[in-house]
Amino acid sequence: MNKPGIGSDKIIRHTHDGELEYLADDLTIEEPLEIRVRGRTVATTMRTPGQDDELAVGFLISEAMIKSRDDIAKIARNDHARNAENIIDFELREGLNVPSSSAQRIGTITSSCGICGKESIAAIRQRFASIAATHLVRLSLQTLLSLPGRLREKQSEFAQTGGIHAAGIFAIDGRFSVVREDIGRHNAVDKAIGRAALDGKLPLDQNVLIVSGRASFEIVQKALAAGIPIIASVSAPSALAVTFCRESNQTLVGFLRPPSFNVYSHVERIMLEGSTRE
Amino acid sequence: MNKPGIGSDKIIRHTHDGELEYLADDLTIEEPLEIRVRGRTVATTMRTPGQDDELAVGFLISEAMIKSRDDIAKIARNDHARNAENIIDFELREGLNVPSSSAQRIGTITSSCGICGKESIAAIRQRFASIAATHLVRLSLQTLLSLPGRLREKQSEFAQTGGIHAAGIFAIDGRFSVVREDIGRHNAVDKAIGRAALDGKLPLDQNVLIVSGRASFEIVQKALAAGIPIIASVSAPSALAVTFCRESNQTLVGFLRPPSFNVYSHVERIMLEGSTRE
Repeated sequence: MNKPGIGSDKIIRHTHDGELEYLADDLTIEEPLEIRVRGRTVATTMRTPGQDDELAVGFLISEAMIKSRDDIAKIARNDHARNAENIIDFELREGLNVPSSSAQRIGTITSSCGICGKESIAAIRQRFASIAATHLVRLSLQTLLSLPGRLREKQSEFAQTGGIHAAGIFAIDGRFSVVREDIGRHNAVDKAIGRAALDGKLPLDQNVLIVSGRASFEIVQKALAAGIPIIASVSAPSALAVTFCRESNQTLVGFLRPPSFNVYSHVERIMLEGSTRE
Repeated sequence: MNKPGIGSDKIIRHTHDGELEYLADDLTIEEPLEIRVRGRTVATTMRTPGQDDELAVGFLISEAMIKSRDDIAKIARNDHARNAENIIDFELREGLNVPSSSAQRIGTITSSCGICGKESIAAIRQRFASIAATHLVRLSLQTLLSLPGRLREKQSEFAQTGGIHAAGIFAIDGRFSVVREDIGRHNAVDKAIGRAALDGKLPLDQNVLIVSGRASFEIVQKALAAGIPIIASVSAPSALAVTFCRESNQTLVGFLRPPSFNVYSHVERIMLEGSTRE
């Protein structure tokens, strides 16, 4: 293993001209991470190892189990446990009440009772405030169009396997940025949010989140948990993500493939002056 | 909603020449589906509605809770429940013992205890037999290279949103094929396997699975649960998926982008005669 998260392996490659090559290939590592809170397992997720603290912190924020780093008393690894590298345990601030309903939410699961998309939105919106309408953050066309390139730039080392997703958080004033990668779309977002949380940057109300994959309901929900007002995806959003963003006052940009893109909600945050029509 | 799984919505498109267009756009629908077994919730997953029976059956097979359609006594919808369209309940064959450990596995979660990738593989391999070494299935180069096109052909109607994953199962003798789509990679595979199970086609030991996304551990595990010996992905596999396929005697092809592809395990099933070197 040369780089964290990347393994090397021998494969057979059938090339364009019909030749066979026997060569070493880089592969994304995938291992389970068990997240515990006060000794109790709350989730096990398949992830690309590395930045486990960030991943777990971001997950707990997305699940509304903690609000910031101040809610964490200690992040522990039990060195004596079997597979200690795949278990992370959180001691939380004394008196912090972890909702049992949250603790039952596992992985990418959004609810444990029969709900519809509309009720999913209602449930999430009870847990997290909508983005405030005051202090309108605005993103220039130039900055928006620069995001896919800035994401790629930072992920170049890992992106060679093609099997990894990236998420980036960029402050509009340029003062903060973090790009994280993982085999799972959700994990990449959790890691980026977790890093920001560990740096005391929450709420990220002056930031934009960009993801290399699709913008599904769970991605925009995680953004709201971190207070992020603008989400951009290089691919498609889901219908539920669009509805969610409209209600939560988040701007959702999809198919961001410069120079073109689609705006699905709250276009008022995008400064479209450069365009011929407004 | 014009087509199942697709919704239409008004968006703003910023075009290549800087123009703004206001137009209707197709979006993938995403709604939660709650899967119950004997009245107890075993999973809630965000999915593209449609073929819910297939999705749930494929999920139960992947989780080793049932082996075939014969294990199902009845698939029920409680029409009086709130959000009845998002709840599906299974009555199972009398006497069928559903392992409680399986019942606790939710969604894409592979284990609820601290494990490593190697132990994940061991746990899965205890639940499903490896592909038998006898009756070697072989796939011609021509058939292999035709798969991405055949997948695209069948998914053309939905693929317009760009936000949907596809999985196809093709019999090597051409006698069976199914292509299913979903906003979730795992769901698309579950639906295809579920359709095959409902048609009494399991084990799919003369079939190949092709997926539009990455080949992660969970995808090859689902293939093994259905007895599928060959998995092809148009994108990258994970390191754990490669290790798993080597141990389970499955052939794993990645980056299948005709005319080139990579073979990560058990190349003996691919007839490479057309190549200049072997």
